[in-house]
Amino acid sequence: MPEAWHQERRSVSVLGSTGSIGCNTVDLLARNPDAFSVEVLTGNRNVKLLAEQAVRLKAKRAVVADESLYGELKSLLSGTNIACAAGEDAIIEAGAHPSDILVAAIVGTAGLKPTLEGARRGALVALANKETLVSAGALMTQEVKNGGATLIPVDSEHSAIFQVFDFERVQAVSKITLTASGGPFREKSLDEMQAMTPEQAVAHPNWDMGAKISVDSATMMNKGLEMIEAFHLFPVPSEAIEVLVHPQSVIHSMVSYVDGSVLAQLGTPDMRTPIAFALAWPKRMSAPSETLSLADIGTLTFEAPDTVRFPALRLARECLQTGGAAPTVMNAANEVAVAAFLGRKIGFLDIARVVEKVLDEGGLEPLSDLDAVFAIDAEARLRAAAVIDRL
Amino acid sequence: MPEAWHQERRSVSVLGSTGSIGCNTVDLLARNPDAFSVEVLTGNRNVKLLAEQAVRLKAKRAVVADESLYGELKSLLSGTNIACAAGEDAIIEAGAHPSDILVAAIVGTAGLKPTLEGARRGALVALANKETLVSAGALMTQEVKNGGATLIPVDSEHSAIFQVFDFERVQAVSKITLTASGGPFREKSLDEMQAMTPEQAVAHPNWDMGAKISVDSATMMNKGLEMIEAFHLFPVPSEAIEVLVHPQSVIHSMVSYVDGSVLAQLGTPDMRTPIAFALAWPKRMSAPSETLSLADIGTLTFEAPDTVRFPALRLARECLQTGGAAPTVMNAANEVAVAAFLGRKIGFLDIARVVEKVLDEGGLEPLSDLDAVFAIDAEARLRAAAVIDRL
Repeated sequence: MPEAWHQERRSVSVLGSTGSIGCNTVDLLARNPDAFSVEVLTGNRNVKLLAEQAVRLKAKRAVVADESLYGELKSLLSGTNIACAAGEDAIIEAGAHPSDILVAAIVGTAGLKPTLEGARRGALVALANKETLVSAGALMTQEVKNGGATLIPVDSEHSAIFQVFDFERVQAVSKITLTASGGPFREKSLDEMQAMTPEQAVAHPNWDMGAKISVDSATMMNKGLEMIEAFHLFPVPSEAIEVLVHPQSVIHSMVSYVDGSVLAQLGTPDMRTPIAFALAWPKRMSAPSETLSLADIGTLTFEAPDTVRFPALRLARECLQTGGAAPTVMNAANEVAVAAFLGRKIGFLDIARVVEKVLDEGGLEPLSDLDAVFAIDAEARLRAAAVIDRL
Repeated sequence: MPEAWHQERRSVSVLGSTGSIGCNTVDLLARNPDAFSVEVLTGNRNVKLLAEQAVRLKAKRAVVADESLYGELKSLLSGTNIACAAGEDAIIEAGAHPSDILVAAIVGTAGLKPTLEGARRGALVALANKETLVSAGALMTQEVKNGGATLIPVDSEHSAIFQVFDFERVQAVSKITLTASGGPFREKSLDEMQAMTPEQAVAHPNWDMGAKISVDSATMMNKGLEMIEAFHLFPVPSEAIEVLVHPQSVIHSMVSYVDGSVLAQLGTPDMRTPIAFALAWPKRMSAPSETLSLADIGTLTFEAPDTVRFPALRLARECLQTGGAAPTVMNAANEVAVAAFLGRKIGFLDIARVVEKVLDEGGLEPLSDLDAVFAIDAEARLRAAAVIDRL
């Protein structure tokens, strides 16, 4: 029998266990019952799946965000020892509840408060919630520092960078390169993009994702958001963060060093690899991801990104340079614009136009605390809606 | 002024400073006079270059292998404080002479003894001499262990693996992948290869190399030798060492982990990158290598190696499994066969045939010490010559 990869059992809570990242996390935890004990699982509305997961993983507590579903959850878990709770405060408490690892996989601004709780109490935060770093990056990194927490990104690009970034020799890093599939419209002209429908935009070539993130992939705003995340995760100046289009998404990202070495992480498109990396860090555990075969894949291609056809990349870089509330505003305006596109209120190219107009209105204040983040986020959403009405 | 990458000056000796690796090393040392002091430089016959290098780097001692050139070296360095020496024993002494770092860049079996001296005295050995690991791998790793030395490979493939290999978590490594350009005959049929001339064989697509190593690239024996080196450098079973053909030579090699992650080092074809890595380890220093631009390169391709057209790969794997003296015999027989091919005594495909026949003769003894290595090496050369005569 091979030596176990772990020495002691670590306790884990999963915020957003019924989503895509959450389900993949549950799969890995279920495969490694000797390595992990489960504290809390939280879900938004899917109480049936949440209850199933809680039973399967012998979780101590299950929390559903929608308070109206408390009774249903309670009933599904009757006869077990699993405690139930519901509502926004219970989700925040789930983040604050002691655990070695907090997997932060709630989508959107709802993930902010419970994720910050994990940072505050010094957990290893496996971070899949984009908003935490995009909208509240400075606050989050400060909480991580104050709380003595460890932040491990759980998305393929930042996990790749984390795996080959030498945090002990930051001076030796010359560049970070985020790879981008280029999305479904990589080869489309601006005229063609203007006519694209929501159905065409959500057909991502490599990854199976939700509608919002698929549209972000089509506009390449997802890569813009990732640039901002990278800025908060890795101690490099914003000019050292680059984007490279790589349609096959095999090289997940890269770090360049002053001696000419470029270190990269490659793999098949399976989120269980970055999740397993975060759960086992600093060790490594087996993941059931398919083995990469470059001989079978045959060809990898690369091209410089086109910021004329994909203005979101330019906007994101400008927000990164402006700093303060700019990324928060960009993210909020983008969410509203994407929803309007999916609701057929605006065209595909209008998404970036709306974001740019909202950013151009200015009045961006520095973010003093989380309330300021929420206030700016709310204001940017209203402004975006107004811009959309005027289009 | 940026913070210096180094904290203290390290002393360096370079065995084979007038060769290709040696000259690149001298270039890096000359660019970093505050970081390195130079103890000994050795050369084979090129006393003029050796003397120039010694003056340029303010070396304490210069040693020429060819004793008949002692007077010339002495005269070139008269009026300096640089001590002179000549002959095989002086070269071995150069390896034994105290220095923090020993760059072992002598080509061939002549490099064995002085390199082992560096390992014995616990130096950081920057190893560019293939024979040390191919012909005397077990002895070398034993000397490294006994002497408390650090062995850092200086060739692009093994440096790549070293940079992404987690020595603290060897159990997490599932595979090592050595990339291979495939050489100039990658797309040739066996019939076409049969007719190939030495001139065609030495035209390597990506790297500018000497004749012997260029022929090894054409037969892919170089990759076979590298598999054996990898086996001694990295604690993995021989089955975990694979070869992947990658004609552009941009990904220099890879390490696969149990979680599905594949870590790789990439770069332009400039030996100053792996040399700088070894000289600065565990830090990193700037190297003047050209920056890699994947957007400019555009396309990387990969294919499985063909052991029918390139039997050297099969022979090397068999030698790795046999162990003992087999790699020593293979290496010696290959050197004689390549020389015979370059001298137009045998055809291109005869190179592997000669090696296989010599290996088939058997009688391979385990290697008890360096004398046994030299004895087996000498015997294998005689046997190879006899096989060539009988062809």
